[in-house]
Amino acid sequence: MSEKMLEELEGFNGRVSYHDSVEEMVKRIRADKLSNVFDRYASQEKIRCSFCLKGVSCQLCSNGPCRINEKGGQEKGVCGIDPNAMAMRNFLLKNIMGAGTYSHHAYEAFRTLKATGEGKTPFKITDVDKLKWMCEKVGIDTNQEVNKMAIDLAVLLEDQQKIDSEDKNVMVEAFAPKKRKEIWRKLAIYPAGTVHEEQNCVASCLTNVDGSHVSLAMKALRLGIATIYNTQIGLEMVQDILFGTPTPHEVNMDLGIMDPDYVNVVFNGHQPWPGVATILKARTKEVQDMAKAAGAKGLRIVGSIETGQELLQRFEMDEVFVGHMGNWLTIEPLLATGTVDVFAMEENCSPPAIDMYAEKYQVTLVSVSTIIDLPGIEHKIPYEPSEVDKMADKLIELAIENFKKRKERKIEPLVPKKTQKAIAGFSTEAVLGALGNKLDPLVDVIAAGKIKGVVALANCSTLRNGPQDSMTINLTKELIKRDILVVSGGCGNHALEVAGLCTVEAANEMAGEGLKEVCNLLKIPPVLSFGTCTDTGRISMLVTALADHLDVDVADLPIAVTAPEWMEQKATIDGIFALAYGTYTHLSPTPFMTGAPQLVELLTEKAKDVTGGKIALGDNPIEVAENIEAHIIAKRKGMGLS
Amino acid sequence: MSEKMLEELEGFNGRVSYHDSVEEMVKRIRADKLSNVFDRYASQEKIRCSFCLKGVSCQLCSNGPCRINEKGGQEKGVCGIDPNAMAMRNFLLKNIMGAGTYSHHAYEAFRTLKATGEGKTPFKITDVDKLKWMCEKVGIDTNQEVNKMAIDLAVLLEDQQKIDSEDKNVMVEAFAPKKRKEIWRKLAIYPAGTVHEEQNCVASCLTNVDGSHVSLAMKALRLGIATIYNTQIGLEMVQDILFGTPTPHEVNMDLGIMDPDYVNVVFNGHQPWPGVATILKARTKEVQDMAKAAGAKGLRIVGSIETGQELLQRFEMDEVFVGHMGNWLTIEPLLATGTVDVFAMEENCSPPAIDMYAEKYQVTLVSVSTIIDLPGIEHKIPYEPSEVDKMADKLIELAIENFKKRKERKIEPLVPKKTQKAIAGFSTEAVLGALGNKLDPLVDVIAAGKIKGVVALANCSTLRNGPQDSMTINLTKELIKRDILVVSGGCGNHALEVAGLCTVEAANEMAGEGLKEVCNLLKIPPVLSFGTCTDTGRISMLVTALADHLDVDVADLPIAVTAPEWMEQKATIDGIFALAYGTYTHLSPTPFMTGAPQLVELLTEKAKDVTGGKIALGDNPIEVAENIEAHIIAKRKGMGLS
Repeated sequence: MSEKMLEELEGFNGRVSYHDSVEEMVKRIRADKLSNVFDRYASQEKIRCSFCLKGVSCQLCSNGPCRINEKGGQEKGVCGIDPNAMAMRNFLLKNIMGAGTYSHHAYEAFRTLKATGEGKTPFKITDVDKLKWMCEKVGIDTNQEVNKMAIDLAVLLEDQQKIDSEDKNVMVEAFAPKKRKEIWRKLAIYPAGTVHEEQNCVASCLTNVDGSHVSLAMKALRLGIATIYNTQIGLEMVQDILFGTPTPHEVNMDLGIMDPDYVNVVFNGHQPWPGVATILKARTKEVQDMAKAAGAKGLRIVGSIETGQELLQRFEMDEVFVGHMGNWLTIEPLLATGTVDVFAMEENCSPPAIDMYAEKYQVTLVSVSTIIDLPGIEHKIPYEPSEVDKMADKLIELAIENFKKRKERKIEPLVPKKTQKAIAGFSTEAVLGALGNKLDPLVDVIAAGKIKGVVALANCSTLRNGPQDSMTINLTKELIKRDILVVSGGCGNHALEVAGLCTVEAANEMAGEGLKEVCNLLKIPPVLSFGTCTDTGRISMLVTALADHLDVDVADLPIAVTAPEWMEQKATIDGIFALAYGTYTHLSPTPFMTGAPQLVELLTEKAKDVTGGKIALGDNPIEVAENIEAHIIAKRKGMGLS
Repeated sequence: MSEKMLEELEGFNGRVSYHDSVEEMVKRIRADKLSNVFDRYASQEKIRCSFCLKGVSCQLCSNGPCRINEKGGQEKGVCGIDPNAMAMRNFLLKNIMGAGTYSHHAYEAFRTLKATGEGKTPFKITDVDKLKWMCEKVGIDTNQEVNKMAIDLAVLLEDQQKIDSEDKNVMVEAFAPKKRKEIWRKLAIYPAGTVHEEQNCVASCLTNVDGSHVSLAMKALRLGIATIYNTQIGLEMVQDILFGTPTPHEVNMDLGIMDPDYVNVVFNGHQPWPGVATILKARTKEVQDMAKAAGAKGLRIVGSIETGQELLQRFEMDEVFVGHMGNWLTIEPLLATGTVDVFAMEENCSPPAIDMYAEKYQVTLVSVSTIIDLPGIEHKIPYEPSEVDKMADKLIELAIENFKKRKERKIEPLVPKKTQKAIAGFSTEAVLGALGNKLDPLVDVIAAGKIKGVVALANCSTLRNGPQDSMTINLTKELIKRDILVVSGGCGNHALEVAGLCTVEAANEMAGEGLKEVCNLLKIPPVLSFGTCTDTGRISMLVTALADHLDVDVADLPIAVTAPEWMEQKATIDGIFALAYGTYTHLSPTPFMTGAPQLVELLTEKAKDVTGGKIALGDNPIEVAENIEAHIIAKRKGMGLS
């Protein structure tokens, strides 16, 4: 790599993020000489392993580590595995981690619903209609008391995560597109429960078990389907039942929401339980008075990454819940504002080296999960549904204590000025609501070509393909310019909210004429914020409704999926699901598999003849948008639309 | 690395294996220009990654791959993970794969027991006493019909794999040492079911979830305990119930058992189902006549690696079942004898590059599992308990077809001359039986110092620390010379059986005076063949019986564990269990974690103050034996023994 290239990479020509607020904070972080994700990226860039980048490095057994280097005569690993199976196995292991983490989230959701039905939590069944609807879908008696129904549903959903191949997959039957089910049966990728599929996959990844990249890829597809239907959809619906189905409303984004004069409790991760409990508590006069007694103007709750989005899409902005800070790469910058009192974490992304920020800027780090731990963390309150009320008390207590210390230590706050408005809280129900409870108006505007098609963007945020969120935002701008409606979830969604793309104004400023017209008519943004990465299932429900409404297969619809900045392992299983679902699925950065030519061919070419979907690659937003548009136009033609 | 070192490594000074039979076959393989595991090892040795070897390389997310290189300024990964957590997370991922594979085996065992109770398999409840004993241990009514009892047990055991933290862990309560349970509770590593712990661990390994090496290590310990009690012990007991509890008897080992004039069906992997069904079939005159009609002298069954050992420890040698070929590194040599008609595989180790052997030496490769696949495999018969009878028919048909082709193609057989006798089939029950159904005689000979102590060897076979099986065999010789009884399981056990250490004569030739006397008195070898790697649980049952009999903690006993040639991921979870169990646990080769100094210190030093166990390292058999002896002598002193 040339010095110049390295220089460019190190600083991305001077920027590390699309967001000015992050740029501003990184200056402080560097001045304070703190290690940070942006500089670590630049440093690692100097010593990357080219074998790992290509997916042809394996460290699984003691005969390894092995590398594939055909020119050097290393055509296979010691065991005999070829580069294609090696790369696919590495990838499947990531898929398993993603599926496993979603399953863990779902496990927490289902036991929370059960405990709530049993009266053991401060929560209640907020959306009774949705509970009834879910129970009807899965065959639970709806002629019973609400809490009993909730318990029955919780038990069924947890059971559905664990079912074996011989059991009936109630969730797939209830929620998958009609035509897809047949295809999956034919391909032998109709799944058992997520936990069963994870088991099968994990055992398949053992040294000397599955040496076929095709077989490993088919297992990934089956796992992907199970993850969406037997895990994600259930858990999202349960969160709706408990806390309300999202509805569109205006919210506040970016670091400008932080106010150092308040006690600030930030909830980070993916799971809403202690966050909701703490919002409920913090709305009481008692808690606000406690904060005031400590010298603060009050106590506020701030949403961080997906946990923040779960709160954002269900709670209006008020005196207590003030908004959302952005996505995971903004965590270190957030902590450096010197305004955070408690940073409560329950899932990814809880970056491991933030103890130095906690020390420097006086933040109390708290794990509120059975799985989170970091060096230097002092407070661990493992989540228990029946204890969540006490957890909230403890978090408030810790935050007020921290506020006092923050003032004693005279921590200098530095808060970027910008606060951005966005409309969050879309859901299938909300979209239908906006359309008068039928899909025809959406079909009509697509048929008329005002909207060419729909792209689902589900995503993280990474530095591999440019400054934070630049690929996500630039690609989205290119898509809406082409009259393609974007439905977004995950850290990429927060990127778009912070960047101002989730507003009606954005339609006027950036969208093509057709999309602009539709947005103004319906008063919706050109990018519909559908929530978190966990809402991939929710997004698919809209697509499934559309496919079944038109009685076509998903693969025939003028839609596509993109993950323009996938970072971690949950994104990989979402991507694999999209492939099984039959969609054109763009991934950037390129997954670690370019050293495996047959695997690349399978996923990017041959897959089309198998599932109807394919993986598309590319890191240039304009080229990617052109390819997606071409795909959508081809599908429109297939449906007889001009 | 110097040229000389490389040369030594490439050829291990001319040898690739301890076994002459393997050496002989490797000559043929090389002459036939086939890729093989030994030459691939030498080739990979030229391009090893030093970061991977030290455990400080991470490929999990798209901000990576990362490496730790403190001198270069890369002290953490991009996310912020430190070298200790990075290496432990890499290791925990391997532990999960091991636990997951055992769980998959157990799942197959439990559904086979259930199907057998329902009359759907050709199997029957062979050891009714053991069924009753198990049912009593776990609280199932024994006053019911045998098959009903079997079904109840199967359901309970599968459920015990999946229980959550709030459920009662019936298996740990029934089978763990009394004093250990208290310790595990205090350390918060008393586990839920294996599947639950796998989920927790897999979600913890996700990027930005658990960044603490201590927390990750504690999760590994909890997973290790679950794996042994909620998975291994149940599955081994079920196999005893179905096929009989092992009893010591003389068996035939090594490649000399192969006879090209027979139709030879080899069963490879870890699970006995189709192997047993085929033995039952092959004993019929009808099948033998079919083989004879095809020009063969008859049809024979041969055991390969752990599947072979499962058969070996329960079936006497006869005209049909003729013995066991050795361990996994002997698979390519076995196929090169030109005598194998069907090679049936259901779990690891089924090496991925054997299709060229199948082609060259006319072997029909068959997957008899839901998880095995390899490039070039034509026949896949996924295991279903109710179909196992038909599977056996199909395997016999394929084997006879292959025999014809093998003769047509005039495949030249080459069979090494050596067949080695061994005594296989030890179990806790068999040891107690030999001692007159009480443990006191064993305690007495230990107290008298005739046996200084006991070492459990559970193991694979690797090339990293020398020619195949050399470390295992040389270490064992050093131990028995020091009057230390060895109880062995896994591929290392087959190494010892093939090398002639599992005979009474070995005691006379190699054991110390005290051990020799005991062996001759009881007519037992100095190495007790306890079965497979899956029998780690079985071995622990003997140790638990001893600890509870003496009312001491496991950590106080004059015992140790060694895995002198661990290779794959199941071995890593067995080793982690041993640490949780409180034993001195020797591992060679050194796991990939030397770049993580705090982690190494935790496992090799600090662990002693946590679980009472510790990891010991070392690749020199004499030094390792000296260290183990010193540990055993120290523990003897602690118990007041001279």
